[in-house]
Amino acid sequence: MKKPLILISNDDGIESDGIRTLWREIRKFAEVVVVAPHTQQSAVGHAVTVSNPIRVRKNLIDKNFYGFAVEGSPADSVKLAVRNLLKGRKIDLLLSGINHGSNTAINIIYSGTVSAATEGTILGIPSIAVSLASYTFNDFSASAVFAAKLSKYVLKKGLPKGTLLNVNVPAVKKEKIKGVLMTMQGKSVWDDHYESRLDPNKREYFWLTGKMKILDKNNSCDEIAVNENYISVTPVHYDLTDYVTLEKIKSWKIKL
Amino acid sequence: MKKPLILISNDDGIESDGIRTLWREIRKFAEVVVVAPHTQQSAVGHAVTVSNPIRVRKNLIDKNFYGFAVEGSPADSVKLAVRNLLKGRKIDLLLSGINHGSNTAINIIYSGTVSAATEGTILGIPSIAVSLASYTFNDFSASAVFAAKLSKYVLKKGLPKGTLLNVNVPAVKKEKIKGVLMTMQGKSVWDDHYESRLDPNKREYFWLTGKMKILDKNNSCDEIAVNENYISVTPVHYDLTDYVTLEKIKSWKIKL
Repeated sequence: MKKPLILISNDDGIESDGIRTLWREIRKFAEVVVVAPHTQQSAVGHAVTVSNPIRVRKNLIDKNFYGFAVEGSPADSVKLAVRNLLKGRKIDLLLSGINHGSNTAINIIYSGTVSAATEGTILGIPSIAVSLASYTFNDFSASAVFAAKLSKYVLKKGLPKGTLLNVNVPAVKKEKIKGVLMTMQGKSVWDDHYESRLDPNKREYFWLTGKMKILDKNNSCDEIAVNENYISVTPVHYDLTDYVTLEKIKSWKIKL
Repeated sequence: MKKPLILISNDDGIESDGIRTLWREIRKFAEVVVVAPHTQQSAVGHAVTVSNPIRVRKNLIDKNFYGFAVEGSPADSVKLAVRNLLKGRKIDLLLSGINHGSNTAINIIYSGTVSAATEGTILGIPSIAVSLASYTFNDFSASAVFAAKLSKYVLKKGLPKGTLLNVNVPAVKKEKIKGVLMTMQGKSVWDDHYESRLDPNKREYFWLTGKMKILDKNNSCDEIAVNENYISVTPVHYDLTDYVTLEKIKSWKIKL
């Protein structure tokens, strides 16, 4: 049987450990092409480079790992892979990750990892974003194994047009993971502000700092599920219409 | 009666004509503070600067127009305005725009204009994004007048928590505008690719090009409504959960 063709991207950059661990696991059953930003792109949201040119390098990290390094955003990388680099080939699945740090609740909005998967979905490819819920825990193996299992499932079952899966894996040893929960995006938001500092020339600059304010109550939401050591799988789409409000404002009488 | 406090931002940058026209109209009835990116930030999505410091300049464009120019994204500008620059003051409304170019259908995902309004919404401020549906038509006056009318309406009526209004105004003279339609985000997407070119040193670079592929049939969708010369108002939220798919995948049996 012909191996499926899987595109891997991320937002931590092509030299990150997460993408390499994912690649190592996925190539056991698939043909894998890596197209990812050349440097770390966290919190870029769904940025696309339109006003500037983009360059691409074939990156040989070592003899076992290579891919295309794109001087752009995660969404740029996926778009360029699909539209040009792999043009004419049927891509069976896109995987984005494994991101270092969770992408739950409001973070989905800011996430470059999710945005790569969103771009894949827009381009008609079943797509999965995978994040490990820690900036410090460095063992991506459980995340990669789960990504492989879910990939096989999605390759068989498909995904609805316009919907991706956003996966968050708790940052604990495999034995401590309690199971898999299908969740919704949580309501938790950032309680953040900018620290005002002075540079060596005594000019002021600002630096964002803060922490997540947990507003959800139970593990039907992504953030809580991961905190309770479940793998969280959230179906995400990009129809942003608030249909409930749409019905309400149809009665508004506003003229120019 | 005390004037409402309105924060204005955008993604075209603080020196653009659109933000100045909006400011001129809104200050007729409100106290206005402008906090916007110092340069053009189109298609940045919901980028937030976390790994770098941000600087702010008080920008005096002329004696009648001034504001804070932020060396960052639209979302950075709004977050910094709310968390620091206007800290402790109740902001009654956020306006983002007037953008030069439409933000309809899939463009909502890429839009810095909408992202400024999304950030306002996340921070609990009733928010409206306003775009003029042309890159060449330069008359922002009808857009500004409508933005003012809608602002007064929203100041009175409020908006549901978590929902913003995304407004697109057709690029025609005021007399040609047929009315206002409450719409949903359209399904139209980009048919795009990267042109491969050579720089003067014969190295390859890529540049994004393409056009919108219209997939919607009638003016219940934003893109078509604007094309038919209606002002389109779409309620947009940031709960990206696909609840229909969530119910379906709850039956999936996947283990780590």
